[in-house]
Amino acid sequence: MSGLTHFDGQGHAHMVDVSGKAVTDRLAVAEGWVRMRAETLDLITEGRAKKGDVLSVSRLAGIMGAKKTAELIPLCHPLPITKVALDLTADPSRPGIRVEASVKTSGQTGVEMEALTAVAVACLTVYDMVKAVEKGMVIEDVRLLLKDGGKSGRYEAAG
Amino acid sequence: MSGLTHFDGQGHAHMVDVSGKAVTDRLAVAEGWVRMRAETLDLITEGRAKKGDVLSVSRLAGIMGAKKTAELIPLCHPLPITKVALDLTADPSRPGIRVEASVKTSGQTGVEMEALTAVAVACLTVYDMVKAVEKGMVIEDVRLLLKDGGKSGRYEAAG
Amino acid sequence: MSGLTHFDGQGHAHMVDVSGKAVTDRLAVAEGWVRMRAETLDLITEGRAKKGDVLSVSRLAGIMGAKKTAELIPLCHPLPITKVALDLTADPSRPGIRVEASVKTSGQTGVEMEALTAVAVACLTVYDMVKAVEKGMVIEDVRLLLKDGGKSGRYEAAG
Amino acid sequence: MSGLTHFDGQGHAHMVDVSGKAVTDRLAVAEGWVRMRAETLDLITEGRAKKGDVLSVSRLAGIMGAKKTAELIPLCHPLPITKVALDLTADPSRPGIRVEASVKTSGQTGVEMEALTAVAVACLTVYDMVKAVEKGMVIEDVRLLLKDGGKSGRYEAAG
Amino acid sequence: MSGLTHFDGQGHAHMVDVSGKAVTDRLAVAEGWVRMRAETLDLITEGRAKKGDVLSVSRLAGIMGAKKTAELIPLCHPLPITKVALDLTADPSRPGIRVEASVKTSGQTGVEMEALTAVAVACLTVYDMVKAVEKGMVIEDVRLLLKDGGKSGRYEAAG
Amino acid sequence: MSGLTHFDGQGHAHMVDVSGKAVTDRLAVAEGWVRMRAETLDLITEGRAKKGDVLSVSRLAGIMGAKKTAELIPLCHPLPITKVALDLTADPSRPGIRVEASVKTSGQTGVEMEALTAVAVACLTVYDMVKAVEKGMVIEDVRLLLKDGGKSGRYEAAG
Repeated sequence: MSGLTHFDGQGHAHMVDVSGKAVTDRLAVAEGWVRMRAETLDLITEGRAKKGDVLSVSRLAGIMGAKKTAELIPLCHPLPITKVALDLTADPSRPGIRVEASVKTSGQTGVEMEALTAVAVACLTVYDMVKAVEKGMVIEDVRLLLKDGGKSGRYEAAG
Repeated sequence: MSGLTHFDGQGHAHMVDVSGKAVTDRLAVAEGWVRMRAETLDLITEGRAKKGDVLSVSRLAGIMGAKKTAELIPLCHPLPITKVALDLTADPSRPGIRVEASVKTSGQTGVEMEALTAVAVACLTVYDMVKAVEKGMVIEDVRLLLKDGGKSGRYEAAG
Repeated sequence: MSGLTHFDGQGHAHMVDVSGKAVTDRLAVAEGWVRMRAETLDLITEGRAKKGDVLSVSRLAGIMGAKKTAELIPLCHPLPITKVALDLTADPSRPGIRVEASVKTSGQTGVEMEALTAVAVACLTVYDMVKAVEKGMVIEDVRLLLKDGGKSGRYEAAG
Repeated sequence: MSGLTHFDGQGHAHMVDVSGKAVTDRLAVAEGWVRMRAETLDLITEGRAKKGDVLSVSRLAGIMGAKKTAELIPLCHPLPITKVALDLTADPSRPGIRVEASVKTSGQTGVEMEALTAVAVACLTVYDMVKAVEKGMVIEDVRLLLKDGGKSGRYEAAG
Repeated sequence: MSGLTHFDGQGHAHMVDVSGKAVTDRLAVAEGWVRMRAETLDLITEGRAKKGDVLSVSRLAGIMGAKKTAELIPLCHPLPITKVALDLTADPSRPGIRVEASVKTSGQTGVEMEALTAVAVACLTVYDMVKAVEKGMVIEDVRLLLKDGGKSGRYEAAG
Repeated sequence: MSGLTHFDGQGHAHMVDVSGKAVTDRLAVAEGWVRMRAETLDLITEGRAKKGDVLSVSRLAGIMGAKKTAELIPLCHPLPITKVALDLTADPSRPGIRVEASVKTSGQTGVEMEALTAVAVACLTVYDMVKAVEKGMVIEDVRLLLKDGGKSGRYEAAG
């Protein structure tokens, strides 16, 4: 099963040995969307002017979710994350909420999964807080935008 | 902010009081996709014939993820889940992996978030195990298919 | 060691058997304070008018902390919490932040520890977010205000 | 909101980027109290002579609590703690239990929150184990005594 | 794969649906041993007379471990445990430490795994605390002694 | 209590200060067994040919369990694990399942407990998945095979 590094020679899942890798600065940026009806989005953006704020609760959930990545993803290495930031913005054109997460560490393996997990948890939290109004929201286009550091070097998503 | 039950009268986020709700049987079904290149999908489906198996690792991650829902989603109630099942199938037409999760409980609040979280964690795990081969995979169309039980009754996604 | 129910006849710590207790509705309310300088409090209250908000982050931390009570307190029973609400208010007279948490469940044991844990975690989070400005803040007067339900009945703190 | 480092330029909460900070040895010491009636304190200190021991259970809870800091405090960085020690002593003059925690790490950010969390969890555990006898106990004077290491240097509490 | 209830008709692992099962009182008792040299055992039993106590730390670890069972065992149902008690005794004849755990719940599935997990975690903790003195200790004979409640009825281990 | 490093001079449990230790590469290997009837073992090994697979679920549980070591074992240091691999094999001669775990880190303290915890959790998971067929299975001979790195140097189990 060449290429799938999470399996050993016998095809058994394992946590890849990164002990020989250099400790380097690593960065990953991911994004995702919660698509919803325009009226639902209005409800959220109006809320931002008040004290209760769907976006700030979801941002915090994403930050805390990033710290749980190694608990959630079976073969992920635990990592001392040095930065997590999330940006949630309303986009009337989709319409929906766009989530972007950037995560940094200085370690032997990358933080792509931490950035993607932060995005996913923030999207799920948006869903949770708004589902009483619209159950048909869709989480979509969750993907890695950028990865830097480590032997495999820089990756940037097309378009 | 009418309709957004996770905020109190002052607009503060809180965990909704469900103590007055009846304990009823509740079911939720959610789905989602990891879209990838056809060659990547082939790598996964070949693996199924061997011992190492991307889909079975991801299925397990989804089951365990469902049990972590109340830890991940800030305003979610902890619930004694009575069933979690995930189905992961390769779909050459997208191409990609489709994930479906169904969750049951007997409680005072629904399990939509548990089903969606199971799907999201399984999708993230597929990504993690295959990312060495393709970083451009996209998690998409994560949505609730069905919800049953509780006062608000049955919900079925259109189409 | 009469009275200390968390020890058995031999003086060994154990998780008390509550299996014979009735399932009743239970409520607990606790409070606590973070005392700080007036200038520090001003910094927080000014922040409330903007998007970043010490109090809303701390409120959320308290809610999530309540769900972790049985993980933190060794002999505490895990409980399906049905409600958590926190109220954080600035009190210029102390000066400081007052935290009040109320927690409900329907179960065989009370939620005093959940309410107190919610208060403690919210206070610690206030400290964390403001410590760059003042390290000398003090968490104080964390106590149970009210407890209701269960065989031991109602308790209300004096004054 | 100058000074509040947990918010970015737009006032959004984030986990501060510490990736540029030097890895240095860091130490923090915190203290706190559980104030109670003299008779309740007697019950605890008598217990120390027997096998069941409120103080040793609470000490252990504090040590384990320190390891959960980054899970509890939303914007706290996960850290590889290298030492945790708690000292719990009965003080008949207050009367009550005094808790002191000292925590060390070698990292890019300090361990003040770990020390304070250890104290808070130990105090909550004392409360839990003794609450059947006295519900009116108060957790108080939880504060940082000492912090050393890192760019901001040494801090010592007054008095 | 008849008999292995954790697999569905297609051989996929899932969390068994217990939603149709009756809520009954359930009890499980398990035991296990840490075998060690007589001199090592002496060191532990001498310690019991002092304040530091290998057995009481391990007992507490077992109690807290029982509460983590559903997080550790992938297909285990989360359960509101109503009682956990551990008994650790020195047995000079083996020589070693015997651990016995009993766990109760009122639920739709049994607590065998909780009792076994409590025993395993307590044994691991004994090992951890004494390993500086003897690395050759062996955890052995971890087994279910008794199970009661539920449709499958009572089970008692032979001899 | 000479030799028991987890206690300080007063006999109080604490997490040993490793801040002065060198960061070195560390390896630990542990093993353990689940003894069962020959017919039960047959059921498991037949399953390996199908999609559902007791051994692969248990392997994954062991990997994830290794990451939870510092949460389970009270005085264990949190560690950034760099590798976890488990090998589960059927041994008709015992009869039973043999579990071997190897864990690596680059840190200030060893990974013996991580390797032993991985073995214990994998064994518990085997038990969980097969207990509907045989409740009398026994977890046995869980022990450290090898430890390398750190000041105390190499340890290899006899026989």
